[in-house]
Parts: sequence; structure tokens; C-alpha cells
Amino acid sequence: MRIALDAMGGDYAPATTVEGAIEALLESSELSVILVGDEAEIHSELKKRNYGGVQISIKHASQTVEMDESPLTALRRKKDSSLRVAVDLVKSDHADAMVSAGNSGVVMATALHVLGKIRGIERPAIAAVMPTLKGRFVLIDAGANVDCKPVHLYQFAIMGEAYARYIFNIESPKIGLLGIGEEDAKGNELTRETFKLLRNSKVNFSGNVEGKDIFAGEADVVVCDGFVGNIALKISEGLAEAIAKMLKREISESTAGRIGYLFFKDALKNFKRKTDYSEYGGAPLLGISKPCIISHGRSTSKAIKNAIKLAANFHIKGISDIISKEFKEGVSGRETVAIQE
Amino acid sequence: MRIALDAMGGDYAPATTVEGAIEALLESSELSVILVGDEAEIHSELKKRNYGGVQISIKHASQTVEMDESPLTALRRKKDSSLRVAVDLVKSDHADAMVSAGNSGVVMATALHVLGKIRGIERPAIAAVMPTLKGRFVLIDAGANVDCKPVHLYQFAIMGEAYARYIFNIESPKIGLLGIGEEDAKGNELTRETFKLLRNSKVNFSGNVEGKDIFAGEADVVVCDGFVGNIALKISEGLAEAIAKMLKREISESTAGRIGYLFFKDALKNFKRKTDYSEYGGAPLLGISKPCIISHGRSTSKAIKNAIKLAANFHIKGISDIISKEFKEGVSGRETVAIQE
Repeated sequence: MRIALDAMGGDYAPATTVEGAIEALLESSELSVILVGDEAEIHSELKKRNYGGVQISIKHASQTVEMDESPLTALRRKKDSSLRVAVDLVKSDHADAMVSAGNSGVVMATALHVLGKIRGIERPAIAAVMPTLKGRFVLIDAGANVDCKPVHLYQFAIMGEAYARYIFNIESPKIGLLGIGEEDAKGNELTRETFKLLRNSKVNFSGNVEGKDIFAGEADVVVCDGFVGNIALKISEGLAEAIAKMLKREISESTAGRIGYLFFKDALKNFKRKTDYSEYGGAPLLGISKPCIISHGRSTSKAIKNAIKLAANFHIKGISDIISKEFKEGVSGRETVAIQE
Repeated sequence: MRIALDAMGGDYAPATTVEGAIEALLESSELSVILVGDEAEIHSELKKRNYGGVQISIKHASQTVEMDESPLTALRRKKDSSLRVAVDLVKSDHADAMVSAGNSGVVMATALHVLGKIRGIERPAIAAVMPTLKGRFVLIDAGANVDCKPVHLYQFAIMGEAYARYIFNIESPKIGLLGIGEEDAKGNELTRETFKLLRNSKVNFSGNVEGKDIFAGEADVVVCDGFVGNIALKISEGLAEAIAKMLKREISESTAGRIGYLFFKDALKNFKRKTDYSEYGGAPLLGISKPCIISHGRSTSKAIKNAIKLAANFHIKGISDIISKEFKEGVSGRETVAIQE
């Protein structure tokens, strides 16, 4: 598998992207990575490391997309950005999948513009994997579409189901609609209409799921619009970090706490690993014709490594094709609109 | 201060409500509580406890509102419910404030119907207090209004500011708009329009605040619609619980962890206290003419005790009057609509 990596995307790039690529390559001999970005900078990062024997190459790109740049400006003025060139490599079949930890709005817009959508899909969406007490769930949409219609959420459910089936290896993943009460009458206009569409569909719909229940693992796929999804994701991240800091403060404020910590640190480490976003690496853009993985802006090398592995698996398992097939076989966007009318 | 308590509201009522009332009364001799609900049941709970010397009385109500009952049905058919009678006591000036841990939709509808709104306010909202690394913030609306217009969120900001000023004792609380990016162009249609209203207003508006930053204490008041707010609240609660369970599991799975716990338990206890919703007791309905406090359905007696104390403070500090004054002095709903047009 050939992965194009936007080597300049992310807060700590290119140091973390180069390091993450090497880590991924050392773990799998079937992978090759094309580092896309400023050749001199990438080369200087490579020189600091030992990467003998791995399949790594550089593709120069003269521009970089800024974190606060608008998708429209980036698309118009940054045609030689590391992100754009990485996506172009997938389009021209020089790579099988791409990974970027850059500006997620621009990644989304570029992928949509260059690679296009799977036929029948109205809006691609970001599918983020989050931990629960029992395992994991897919949150879709985690931030691509801020204002949605019921048909969009319905399609997110179909795509999320296909993704969860393959990454969690469950035949019939349970689909929940993120809401504020279990009864179908509860929620806002958007979720009440989406509820009706999902109830009449073929997916294994388990109804509304409340925020307090998602971490208990009540659904394998949690569906919501991208505004709510992004807030859910960021709040979870912020709260997990705040709790870790509060615990650390409580520990350091007492002698007993400090002694306890010596015995306790493995448990804390395990816990941190389970709630650490970098374990999941990145989130795919579902509904785009080829595999595109968005990584966290603050990605560490470990997150980049895991995003590269996710991109490779996405390609091997042919998830884009599976979604495409789902939308051909009777659950297409057009039919959904018909249900709604 | 005379507090009317819906003694039948909440998952563990009337045991926890009766217990909570006695605890509050034992801590403050200036309080009196009217327990509203089934006289026989309340009496049997009272008999189990020692409550000599406190100012407690019972007001019989023959009906109880169920947790899944619709506001409309409850308003029409439960005119002698414990909730309704408690609200009626405030209306007829037999009580200064009311507390209920019952069905929050029905509490909201009943308060609105019986007590009415403060003049100029279009939609009352629930103001929940949440912990941060530095202190606390007010989340408004935490679940009263699922579909909102920009003018509603604008009014939530004004009410939240007045509330935060008095409970946190800060002259000029920082107001943040819950969003998905710091720039004003980011967000959905609702937040982008609200952003413009807030930027042109007199409140100390610090712009969009992201989910990851709210627990760092970047704003004293976080404004959002009730659908998003309720999801934010429930996700925080669910995640905090899940993290506590994961930690407990990690601890019990290793001997070192178990030994560490012995040294560590005070730190854990402190930490639990800081993230425990029952410390904050309840959330007021801002915009209603008299003090109404909604408590968590799963309220313990401690949560009820703190909700009663909050109701008393809300009354003493005259927060309803302060909000009413704010809306008379140039930041009225009508003017806001004018800004929007």
C-alpha cells in the first residue's frame, strides 16, 4: 500500500509526520509512504533519524496550508500545497490513500474537489472512533457538515454502519441517534425527522442515544450533525484532559497521594492509553471516492503512525467500495429523499 | 425563606427529597421547607428520621408526574400533582422559591404556565453550573429550548451574565459562544448570526469557545441552544462516570494498583467531589418570574440539600429582579430583534 502523507500538516509538522511515517514503515514491510511537502525541511528531518530499509520517498510541494485558512482561499491559491499535492497523488493513482493532520475544513474541501463523492452520497462526513467502557464506537459526523438535513444524517448512518461493520468486525452494528431523550418525540426538528427515516430503514436502529450513555457503549455508531458531533468530540477531549490534570494536582498536593502514585502509575498509564486520541490515529472522510484520513492538528508521531495504518486498512478492506455498493443496492440517496417526502 | 419542594420528583423520591430537606434545614435556621406530595408517604419518610426543631411542613398533592410524561398531558391532567402544587405555592406567595428533581420538561412548562416569564424575555432557559480546572462556569441553555433563533441565544447570554455575576461574584463575567472554531466565520447558521449580535452588544463577549476549552475555564458563561447544551451536559456526566469506572477497573486489576489506592483515596475523593454534579444541586430556570430550581432526576439527598440552598440564595440575591432590570435597561428582547433585522 502506498500512502501519501501531508508532511507539513499539523502543529508539530514536519518533525512528527516524518517520525510517524518511519514508525509505521518499521512496523509493516508492505507499506510505502510518500512524504509530501518542502523537500529541504523533510530531508533535514529524515537526516536526524535512522530509516534504513524502509520504503520512503519525498514529493516536493512549495506551499503549506495554514491552520486558519479558509477552504475557498486554499483551494484557489494553494494549488501546490503539501495537502493538495498529496490528494493529487491519490487522484492520479500514484498513492492508494492519503493522510493529513492539517486544517480539517481544507482537507475536506480538497478531497471533495479533487477526488469527488461516491455516487448517491449527498455529503461526505468525518467518522471518529471513540472509547467506551466496553470497547469503541464510531461518531459520525464529527465535524464536516455544520448544517444538515434529515437525509444527510440518514446517509451518515448507512456509511457509519458500513465502516463499523468492517473496523469492529460486527455483522450488524447498533445505530443510535444522538439526542436528548430516549423517546422518539424528544430532540430537535432535525433529529425527530431523522428518527422517522431511520426507523423505516434497514439499519439496526436502536433509537435515540443520550450523551450519558454513549460511553457505556450503548451504540456502535452514534449519528449526529457535524456541529453537534464536533462539540461532542472536543468536549470529551477537553474533559478527559481536565480530569487527568485535576487528578495529577490532587496527587501532588499530598504525601500520601505521591506515595500512592508510585504504586498506581501503571493503572494510570493503562487508563491514559484507553482515552488517548492518538491510539486511534485519525478519522476517515466517509463518502469520498478514495481513502482520506484526517488526523488531529496536535498529532504526535504515534497518532500519525496509527493514521497511516488506518489509511492502509481502509484501502485493503475496500471500505469506499463497500459504501459505494450499499448506495447502489437500494439505500441510495434518491430513495431516501423519497421516504422523506 | 420558604422553599416549596416537589417531594415526589426524582428517581429516589420521596426518601431522598425528605432527607435532603432535613439536611438543608439543619444547616440553616432561616429556612423553612414545604414538602409537597403524598401526605402518607412523606409522613412515613419523616417518621424514619430525627427532624426536631426544624421548620418543615407537608402540603398534600394527590398526583405525581411520571418521568416520561409529556408536558402537555401533565399540564392538562395533573392539576393536583406534587410539582404543580409546589409551583402554585410560589404563585400564591406561600413560598419564595421551588425545587423539583422531576421531569424537567414538565417543570419548565408548568413554571412557564403558572408563573410566567419576566417581561421582555422570549424563552426562559436552564442555567447549569459546571466545574473547570480554575473554578466553575454557567452553561446556558442546558436543555429547555431545542430549536432556537439567534435572538434567544442572545438573551441567554444576558441572563447568564446576570446569574454568573451574582453566583461567582465577578463584575464582568466573560461570555463565550459554544462553537467549533475560534474564528467568527466558523460554526453553524445559528451561532454565526448569534456571534454578530453578541459582538455588537454590551456583554463582555470573548467570542467562540470550543468544547476542548470550556473545562480550562476560558469563559464564565457558555451560551448554546438547549439541544447542544443538554448533549454537552450529558456527555460530560457520562464521560466523567466512565473515566471513574475505568480507573476503578485499572486499580482493581493489579496488586500495585490496590496498594496504591490506599494512599491515593483522599486524592480520588477530592477529585470526585469537584466533578460531582450533586455539589451544585440544581439548575435555575432563568427568565421565569420567580425562582425555580430543576434538580437532576438521579438526585441524592445531598443534591436536594444543595438545590434548596441554591433556591434560597437565588431568592435572597433577587436574581429574577436583576434579570428583569437588565431587560428594562436597554437590552430588551425587542431591541435585540431590531439589531437582527
